[in-house]
Amino acid sequence: MPLIREAILTTLDENGAPHVAPLGLIAEGEDMVLAPFHPSATLRNLRANPFAAASFPDDARVFAGCLTGRRDWPLAPCETIAAPRLADAMTHLELVVVETREDATRPRFRCRVAHRGAHKPAPGFNRAFAAVIEGAVLISRLHMTPRAEIEPELARLAIIVEKTAGEAEGEAWGWLAEAARAYWRGKGA
Amino acid sequence: MPLIREAILTTLDENGAPHVAPLGLIAEGEDMVLAPFHPSATLRNLRANPFAAASFPDDARVFAGCLTGRRDWPLAPCETIAAPRLADAMTHLELVVVETREDATRPRFRCRVAHRGAHKPAPGFNRAFAAVIEGAVLISRLHMTPRAEIEPELARLAIIVEKTAGEAEGEAWGWLAEAARAYWRGKGA
Repeated sequence: MPLIREAILTTLDENGAPHVAPLGLIAEGEDMVLAPFHPSATLRNLRANPFAAASFPDDARVFAGCLTGRRDWPLAPCETIAAPRLADAMTHLELVVVETREDATRPRFRCRVAHRGAHKPAPGFNRAFAAVIEGAVLISRLHMTPRAEIEPELARLAIIVEKTAGEAEGEAWGWLAEAARAYWRGKGA
Repeated sequence: MPLIREAILTTLDENGAPHVAPLGLIAEGEDMVLAPFHPSATLRNLRANPFAAASFPDDARVFAGCLTGRRDWPLAPCETIAAPRLADAMTHLELVVVETREDATRPRFRCRVAHRGAHKPAPGFNRAFAAVIEGAVLISRLHMTPRAEIEPELARLAIIVEKTAGEAEGEAWGWLAEAARAYWRGKGA
């Protein structure tokens, strides 16, 4: 049961262009393990530039946005690595790869935490924010999970959003719901 | 769709003894509304002493503990009110009641935020922490929701805990699962 923290990861491609994507950080002692799926831009970038910024935003739209074609979030320079972090992060970690364990599905990059940044206080737990994260996980599985499984889960989460969301969480949820509808429309499902 | 933040609320009874309980803070402009159920210690206390500390811990055990007979969490004094806050909070709000709207089920106490405290950086979103919060909501409804509805939800959340929990979240989940089993055993359900 390894602790996993859901982050927005920024990596650099071979030309130095940043790529922003959600990824779970797997705690391993004081280190963090990144295990991006094969193939993915994050995986290619970590091979080209073995470092990454992990940002923890309090805006659920960043997570929902990255899964629905909205990756253009403002970035800010890091202290110790060339990859930028999210400008609007509560906190961030600067990660440097110290060990690579190859795997056909999910290679694992063990990272040292080179720097921890704290930028603004946590606003307190919101159930709708959490529902957006769970919704984002479901949306990322649309291509491999039957609609009959995903749709009732989304409906259950929608109730939590309806009851507890602020404006940002409501907008984030709207993006996810629309992405699911568009996917199923496209499949004629 | 009002934003609700899940807090650990500390109120004082008529003798000045603190009572610690989870409660959702309903955002209303710059104010926060407390709507404790009738009857409850939080409701009685807010009538006796119209102020409260709202703490936001990063330890899921506090939420699970308060619902399973473990309310003895270390407290620390507030800056502007006589009620204490959780000692181990990421952030806290000091709330002073400015308006009471009576209601047979859930009277609403509109509170001004007299002080905001920030004590440690947010560690980043963890799905198991969120699962513990959802589990705590389910446990709080054991007496009014059929086992056939709650049990599959707990099973679904348990998978998330299994995949993403650290030690604290795992322990918190264990307390909730045991509370459900004990309740159903007691009912012969």
